[in-house]
Amino acid sequence: MPHAEIAVASTPSLTAVLFGLSGCLVDFGSLARNNATPSPDHHATPGALKILRSLEERGIPCAWLDELPNAVSTALAAELPRWVKTTPPSSARWPAPHACWQALMALNIERLEGCVLVSGEPRLLQSGLNAGLWTIGLASCGSLCGLSPAQWQALSQQEREYKRAKATMALYGLGVHSVIDHLGELETCLADIRQLKGEKP
Amino acid sequence: MPHAEIAVASTPSLTAVLFGLSGCLVDFGSLARNNATPSPDHHATPGALKILRSLEERGIPCAWLDELPNAVSTALAAELPRWVKTTPPSSARWPAPHACWQALMALNIERLEGCVLVSGEPRLLQSGLNAGLWTIGLASCGSLCGLSPAQWQALSQQEREYKRAKATMALYGLGVHSVIDHLGELETCLADIRQLKGEKP
Repeated sequence: MPHAEIAVASTPSLTAVLFGLSGCLVDFGSLARNNATPSPDHHATPGALKILRSLEERGIPCAWLDELPNAVSTALAAELPRWVKTTPPSSARWPAPHACWQALMALNIERLEGCVLVSGEPRLLQSGLNAGLWTIGLASCGSLCGLSPAQWQALSQQEREYKRAKATMALYGLGVHSVIDHLGELETCLADIRQLKGEKP
Repeated sequence: MPHAEIAVASTPSLTAVLFGLSGCLVDFGSLARNNATPSPDHHATPGALKILRSLEERGIPCAWLDELPNAVSTALAAELPRWVKTTPPSSARWPAPHACWQALMALNIERLEGCVLVSGEPRLLQSGLNAGLWTIGLASCGSLCGLSPAQWQALSQQEREYKRAKATMALYGLGVHSVIDHLGELETCLADIRQLKGEKP
């Protein structure tokens, strides 16, 4: 068998990607979670719409999940592409694995292998780990930094680095497989995971 | 840290065990599956009740799953201990992972790690593999041999060995992690799996 074919056959493909909503796809800093703002920030975080477009083009099913009250999460998700699925919050709350499995079932995926969760929320990431998913933590836009885009930009470079490093260490401490700063770095990170031939999360 | 503590900390414990019903806990040969008998064989297979007692004593949650019509599986399960849970068949049929995840959710388990499926039915084992479970195949009492206890006993030793070897190869061919002959061998097999420190299914 030529070498190129071996490489293709042994590279696990991406089966599905689950995203957090607040502090991941939208609501940089996850302020909706703390009721820190009267109107939830439905703006996409840096890189969010681009990675969703790329995953759509490649036919990778995606879903978002959150545990916020229904009215809040509906408002947050208002401008996300409609093909990104969701499921009602599970009765077993994070970090139980239930919500992740229910999202994968809603996407009707055939196998756990190649399924990835991306989130900036430690409890959701722990749920993904408990469900057996590859997990990618987001450092700067999640609840661990917890600052709005304006607050984040107002920090000095040094202050941002400090907060980012602290969040990154906390996420690796949970056991997540990779930590990136924001969704603009996700494409490269997913490619790295696909290259972990034969490894399991 | 003393060595004994290290060993305990790094040995994954058993989280839950899922069983097939026909051709696993009851109905040796899985004849109910083929409508091969007018009254389904609700007798426990060799070792079934003993391993259930042992798991109950250790507080390991267990469930059985099957895709037979409700009346048949209810009749088959009539003499199993009531603490062994079940869930209605999933709308996504085996080998989709859904049924396995739904059973784990019904048991309210906290994590996929340490969850094991035991079955003699290739489609259910494939479902377990797709769900990310450790899987243990049963060679002689499942659908691949497909003989009643009387038919099985009437075979010569050589004929039994041939059928058992063929079923064992077919099960390993699916990718299951271990194959045993019947549930009497499960205790040892589970202990082996617990010793695979750090490995993932």
